[in-house]
Amino acid sequence: MSYNQMTKEELMKLREELLTAYEEKKGLGLNLSMARGKPERGQLELSMPMLSIINEDTQFVGEDGLDFRNYGILSGTMEAKRFFADILDVETENIVIYGSASLSLMYDTIARAYIKGIMGSEPWSRLDKVKFLCPVPGYDRHFTICEFFGIEMINVPMLEDGPDMDMVEKLVSEDPAVKGIWNVPKYSNPGGVVYSDEVVRRFANLKPAAADFRIYWDNAYCIHHLYRDNQPEILNIIKECEKAGNPDMVYEFCSTSKVTFPGAGISAMAASKANIDETVKYMNAQTISHDKLNQLRHVLFFPTQDALKEHMMKHADIMRPKFEKVTEMLEEELGDAGIASWTKPLGGYFISFDGMEGTAKKIVSMCADAGIVMTGAGATYPYGNDPHDSNIRIAPSFPPMDELVEACRVFIICVKLASIDKILETK
Amino acid sequence: MSYNQMTKEELMKLREELLTAYEEKKGLGLNLSMARGKPERGQLELSMPMLSIINEDTQFVGEDGLDFRNYGILSGTMEAKRFFADILDVETENIVIYGSASLSLMYDTIARAYIKGIMGSEPWSRLDKVKFLCPVPGYDRHFTICEFFGIEMINVPMLEDGPDMDMVEKLVSEDPAVKGIWNVPKYSNPGGVVYSDEVVRRFANLKPAAADFRIYWDNAYCIHHLYRDNQPEILNIIKECEKAGNPDMVYEFCSTSKVTFPGAGISAMAASKANIDETVKYMNAQTISHDKLNQLRHVLFFPTQDALKEHMMKHADIMRPKFEKVTEMLEEELGDAGIASWTKPLGGYFISFDGMEGTAKKIVSMCADAGIVMTGAGATYPYGNDPHDSNIRIAPSFPPMDELVEACRVFIICVKLASIDKILETK
Repeated sequence: MSYNQMTKEELMKLREELLTAYEEKKGLGLNLSMARGKPERGQLELSMPMLSIINEDTQFVGEDGLDFRNYGILSGTMEAKRFFADILDVETENIVIYGSASLSLMYDTIARAYIKGIMGSEPWSRLDKVKFLCPVPGYDRHFTICEFFGIEMINVPMLEDGPDMDMVEKLVSEDPAVKGIWNVPKYSNPGGVVYSDEVVRRFANLKPAAADFRIYWDNAYCIHHLYRDNQPEILNIIKECEKAGNPDMVYEFCSTSKVTFPGAGISAMAASKANIDETVKYMNAQTISHDKLNQLRHVLFFPTQDALKEHMMKHADIMRPKFEKVTEMLEEELGDAGIASWTKPLGGYFISFDGMEGTAKKIVSMCADAGIVMTGAGATYPYGNDPHDSNIRIAPSFPPMDELVEACRVFIICVKLASIDKILETK
Repeated sequence: MSYNQMTKEELMKLREELLTAYEEKKGLGLNLSMARGKPERGQLELSMPMLSIINEDTQFVGEDGLDFRNYGILSGTMEAKRFFADILDVETENIVIYGSASLSLMYDTIARAYIKGIMGSEPWSRLDKVKFLCPVPGYDRHFTICEFFGIEMINVPMLEDGPDMDMVEKLVSEDPAVKGIWNVPKYSNPGGVVYSDEVVRRFANLKPAAADFRIYWDNAYCIHHLYRDNQPEILNIIKECEKAGNPDMVYEFCSTSKVTFPGAGISAMAASKANIDETVKYMNAQTISHDKLNQLRHVLFFPTQDALKEHMMKHADIMRPKFEKVTEMLEEELGDAGIASWTKPLGGYFISFDGMEGTAKKIVSMCADAGIVMTGAGATYPYGNDPHDSNIRIAPSFPPMDELVEACRVFIICVKLASIDKILETK
């Protein structure tokens, strides 16, 4: 029954019952987290053989002709480039390999634009104003990078098949201060949105006012499907930008952080050869080479793309029941309450939850008081400011199933209580 | 016999003989390098057991209480902090762990000063002029970082026990644009200089005009002795700065790049807690954590400082004969020629060679024509500009002994020829 149709008395009664349940949960002294997109222990175990895959019998001289154990090969080993080139369907000359996290690669890419500019443009540090478009809800760490560099963030609504492209096209073409847009184009964080072909093509055909405008295409979840047989694919942004005559307009990012070990994976950027060349030129001031032994571990552990795909399905088999359990519980408890909506993603790491306007902070705070850590309310918006105070990112991956169910029960109680309080304000 | 005392005829005759020898060497089609401070293959083999040291029986939860295989522990594992704290004789709270190279850590430290300033100072990107003092000859990659950020470099002569401290004190205390000074305080690159206690104390007692002046103390070779029984120690700069009431004035850098695997080691910065806290705060925008599995490999491979010391002596046993061979050959062939001098270091990776003024470029170029790659002449000076064109960095570590001897023979021929030509100009 829709909460809005209930009488004040019915709501008050329900509230009492829920408060009792909430206090009970609080008494359990729980300490559970649905806050971050972390793989669970079982997922880490999948990659254990990789840790001992190189040993004294390993061939340490690769296609580049240098010993992987020594200095050199700044832009990454040819073998690692081929690994990512195959994943992203580009040529090896379009790839540069980075360290253990694509986040550092994104940060450094923006840092270089800030310090040196892009292809001869004015360094961003010398400009009065630099703006980035941020599809919302989005990934908090993208926003943190922008805040660090003093980049002004402009919210762009995320629709069902990608950002509001009318708005994107208008802002990008009219304002030369707009230098970038963040995207997680497949299984977006947190909404699980998969960009449609039309959206990708409209991105590739942008006519930016700024020559140093770039699309920051964080393809973090490109191979992170939840299902074996329902795996949407998105258009190849590198190729679409080439076709559209905008080959240099995009940087694409990718990593194995959630494929092998978070923090101990390898990462890559795909871009036009001109972008890659500039990046490698500037990287030369920063490092001699990234960890080629870890690059070697990865290419040996995934000798073929099929091996990689099979590995990802093992992740899916661990993740899928959790995602389904959460959405099932939400459906059962909130399905007809008319107080919330949520996504049912086909991949990625998150369920995006929208409660009633003005309830998200309260829900997250009540959860915290009962020992359930959620991603901070507002974190999915630039400056931590969700204008509707309604969006909450649920990360079901890390807790074991029993803990997840317990955390979810508490979360649902909090949603109900906060919603009833909200409705009662107007009754 | 001193070349300067030889008659023109004697020199011309010697020149003919040397030219014949040089042409012979050229005919061999050599392809040898004494250019970079790279460990040889045998040194890499020393650390092979580290590559398989973690496996399915490993305990992956450490003192921080989190799984090393997952996200988290931004500033580095407590175990890795203790490893470097023991090496540098500081507390773990004075340590932040970084990725596979201290070069990136130095670059990033300067990048953060450029973007954000240091402890509330104006970001360097907004200043008209930022200057660094550079003891010369010095490390080319330090200079590359400065060039990247548009930092003006000022040469400071390196004396026998450290930089010319009169000049350092004067420039640092008088000019608020001087924001830093590079140092490799032990077995300096390339001179092998070991800073005296007095020099370290004078550093610690600097009275900088700029509040955001920092000493960049690249202790790259702190444990890279060549001898078992002649191991000079330098004063602890962190403690000396504390004593002098300047606890925040120094950043110290260190890595295992030449302890285990170049490009696949771990690195650290030591500094005051206030400096470390600021660094970690800013790092949060750049990364979630560095590779903790590689941190784990290192602490397991070096369970004690004694184990580390014994390991370093194995490096020394491989390196020492090469260093001695080179200085022996130089002594034998050039000892009484009066045309060159060179260092006999007790540690580090380089021999610093000084030929006659105006000969270095020619020597390096002649070597190149005969297939011997030397570090570029001038590389040991900011902007690649050796004002005397006399210094050449010799890196004896990488080639096997027989190749090293051959390369050294060619080098000596080139030195003699370039020197004779120089002398003949004035006869």
